[in-house]
Amino acid sequence: MKVQAVSGKTLPTEPRELSEVADWFAETDVVVVGLGAAGSCAAIEAADAGAKVMVLEAGSVGGGTTAMAGGQIYFGGGTLLQSECGFEDTLEDMYQFMVKSCGPNGDEEKIRLYVDNNLDHYQWLLDQGMEFKAEYYAEKYTNTPNDEGLICSGNEYAYPYDTIAKPAPRGHKGKAHGEDGGAYLMRTLTAALEKRQVLISYESRALTLIQDDSKRVVGLVVRIDGEERCIKAAQGVILCAGGFIMNDEMVKNHAPRLAKASLPLGNPNDNGVGLRMGQGVGGSLIGMSEGFVALPFYPPSSFVDGIIVNGKGQRVINEDSYQGVVGDLILNAPDEKFYLVIDSRNFEALEKPPLGGFGVAGVGETIEELEEELNMPARSLSHTLEQFNFHAAEGNDPLFHKRKPYLKPLNEAPYAAFDISINSGAYFPVFTFGGLNTQPTGEVLTEDRQVVTGLYAAGRNTCGLPRSGATYSSGFSIGDATFFGRLAGKTAAQNTK
Amino acid sequence: MKVQAVSGKTLPTEPRELSEVADWFAETDVVVVGLGAAGSCAAIEAADAGAKVMVLEAGSVGGGTTAMAGGQIYFGGGTLLQSECGFEDTLEDMYQFMVKSCGPNGDEEKIRLYVDNNLDHYQWLLDQGMEFKAEYYAEKYTNTPNDEGLICSGNEYAYPYDTIAKPAPRGHKGKAHGEDGGAYLMRTLTAALEKRQVLISYESRALTLIQDDSKRVVGLVVRIDGEERCIKAAQGVILCAGGFIMNDEMVKNHAPRLAKASLPLGNPNDNGVGLRMGQGVGGSLIGMSEGFVALPFYPPSSFVDGIIVNGKGQRVINEDSYQGVVGDLILNAPDEKFYLVIDSRNFEALEKPPLGGFGVAGVGETIEELEEELNMPARSLSHTLEQFNFHAAEGNDPLFHKRKPYLKPLNEAPYAAFDISINSGAYFPVFTFGGLNTQPTGEVLTEDRQVVTGLYAAGRNTCGLPRSGATYSSGFSIGDATFFGRLAGKTAAQNTK
Repeated sequence: MKVQAVSGKTLPTEPRELSEVADWFAETDVVVVGLGAAGSCAAIEAADAGAKVMVLEAGSVGGGTTAMAGGQIYFGGGTLLQSECGFEDTLEDMYQFMVKSCGPNGDEEKIRLYVDNNLDHYQWLLDQGMEFKAEYYAEKYTNTPNDEGLICSGNEYAYPYDTIAKPAPRGHKGKAHGEDGGAYLMRTLTAALEKRQVLISYESRALTLIQDDSKRVVGLVVRIDGEERCIKAAQGVILCAGGFIMNDEMVKNHAPRLAKASLPLGNPNDNGVGLRMGQGVGGSLIGMSEGFVALPFYPPSSFVDGIIVNGKGQRVINEDSYQGVVGDLILNAPDEKFYLVIDSRNFEALEKPPLGGFGVAGVGETIEELEEELNMPARSLSHTLEQFNFHAAEGNDPLFHKRKPYLKPLNEAPYAAFDISINSGAYFPVFTFGGLNTQPTGEVLTEDRQVVTGLYAAGRNTCGLPRSGATYSSGFSIGDATFFGRLAGKTAAQNTK
Repeated sequence: MKVQAVSGKTLPTEPRELSEVADWFAETDVVVVGLGAAGSCAAIEAADAGAKVMVLEAGSVGGGTTAMAGGQIYFGGGTLLQSECGFEDTLEDMYQFMVKSCGPNGDEEKIRLYVDNNLDHYQWLLDQGMEFKAEYYAEKYTNTPNDEGLICSGNEYAYPYDTIAKPAPRGHKGKAHGEDGGAYLMRTLTAALEKRQVLISYESRALTLIQDDSKRVVGLVVRIDGEERCIKAAQGVILCAGGFIMNDEMVKNHAPRLAKASLPLGNPNDNGVGLRMGQGVGGSLIGMSEGFVALPFYPPSSFVDGIIVNGKGQRVINEDSYQGVVGDLILNAPDEKFYLVIDSRNFEALEKPPLGGFGVAGVGETIEELEEELNMPARSLSHTLEQFNFHAAEGNDPLFHKRKPYLKPLNEAPYAAFDISINSGAYFPVFTFGGLNTQPTGEVLTEDRQVVTGLYAAGRNTCGLPRSGATYSSGFSIGDATFFGRLAGKTAAQNTK
């Protein structure tokens, strides 16, 4: 019985010792790894604080995964945009909502800091050139379809969140069409960065960190033009290199549940290299199992009038929940079947494939016929619908508290069911939440909560605000990346050389 | 806005450099950290392979958490005990069952190795002095109540496992009364160890590892008599120091879901120090979010005749599933209510508190009365029972496939419901599964799958066989700890000095 040691499958990230460095290819104060939302904000703030800054980006262009995202940013407590759209909101309601939504291991210190400073952060983005159009989009949708600036991007109005804090829409998207919001944000931030004296080096792949004898991070090794180069960072290195959803082995080891979702959201460089570099010098990776999984079962909004049931015909959720809650619930039972049941009022949807990629599993002239077609036992789905309709007719949903205007009896036969199970063809977009444990300042912590001197992280290289897929709201990720990216940039620039 | 760096809350585990070591308190070939199931087996094998071995145990006595456990070990494929009790089994059925039960990120290489060698391992335990009484205990129970040697300790007979592999009972417990099985195992292993030339140092708390210039682990720092001592381990250090369920911060950071379970199973030294020591030299911690959570809702076996429903009156599981499946399901919805509903045939159970610690939530002359008493909407629980009884009368359970002999109509009014929710007072014993990523040999791997030379781990310091609470069987943990503990001991003893 003999088992061989395996050979490395991913880039080695064991740190290099300063004594091994023959010469410096470049010397600067602060190096930022990755030009996405976190990296651009970190670089701007570090430069504005007087540091000499260099940004290393693995790709040929910047933007990272944020440039591929819809671009919502979570703001509230009374932004100008909220007011212009006629919504009232308070910082305390936003805080209470976020405490619930950031999950059972949420970092209340980071949430507090974010909420209390989010109006200033909103203004800072305006100062960088961002524009928001004062228009609210009221339908259930994955994003605003045009250039509307405001949408409800989470569970604010859904039970039980509506009992925890007064709801308000808080998804803010820059003035860009549909899903171009993230690209617009990154164009804006990159343009703002280019106004500073910052060196951006593209096609520059960070490999590992360099430590001195005292274990302080003093630079890093990077591959440029096929050559390994050492770059000195007198004040520190800020890791902003994205998550690990594109690294199959890391997903299997750390977040096996997420591996069953069909559509990884990210760019090819979301391979976890920043996490591994940080871990290589003692940084602790936390919250690694969690991530965001959605089932975009709306639009159309009218699908929310349907009911979502499992293969046993049992209803499983208030259907007006955010798509992430639904996706997470389905991913928790990957071997179970799930269906979205609609009645004839939504039958025009059968003519064209829904956004979510799911297909029709059955149609029935009666609910009993649909039940049979879905291979459910008699009196399962039919009873569920009877019970739902009875209460819905009175404006109640005693089981799940679905709210008006989506709560109405589903009683206009015929009926149809979409198969929204895992492996059904339905899209389940997914990305990771786990990362380095950091102080709100961006300082990286060891498992023992000691600071790794000279090392900072932000965005998906940290375990930041979003920590629970079941409770997530859109906008948390870019909110976290931009806000704590700025903080990390400021902190690094204040570090003594 | 200023945030201070935190001070260390747990023992620092940054590695010490060899050049910092002034003198060696002791020199040996192999140091084993922790005298539980893994450590004792590692030490025996290392000694038998000719190495000079020293065991460091933080407690005043050995045994670790295994000595507090029921002591089941997962064996199969036709052990002598299975045969004597009249059961047939094959290695292939055992393998297929374990692949499903070790979860979606199960390590098939470790499972294969374990299954293929488990009969030899069984014999090895006999050689160390273990005895098993050839008696099968057929009831549903958390362990054999007396000194019976064999019990079904998992989901072998429950759907869908019974469709994956031919079932057989595989929980083997040494000849000890009830829950004394783990203590008996540890007494046996400790006695076997004491026959070898092995130095066991109690009240010796490992603090951190020592590395030479090439990053090889060459020893460790340990606190003995209040003093820090350095011990040289020419062939390596084997970490067998237990899990982290007693470290609240690590649980919050890595396994927040588990924090809601009420009864951590472990000894006070399950504080994750072995994991942190390993991570300090670059070892990768994987599978950290997972753990075992049970709801011991049986005995009595007759409770399995009841139905388990959520607060919406929906049935949620085949009740003949292993208690771990039920516990995991409830923990996945910590804000939901769950009830075990019984009829009058089980009313004697109302007289004395059940083992699981749960209390009566309601009693009703009819199921409708119980439904109302549990604040469920009309036609929820009552419909569920009607549907269940209809099919059970015909010997079917189309929803969940509960099997005979537990499948019988629940129709002898009055009815009662126990509250088995989280925070209801019901016991939810819990322990962690996550740990260092290792080769089957026990060699510790970095995130990049490079071997950390001179470092080995076994038992709960690794992410071993058990990786999924929803599918776990009792016996996996001690099976894993003893078997891979032995392998780690052998491998370390073969390491060149």
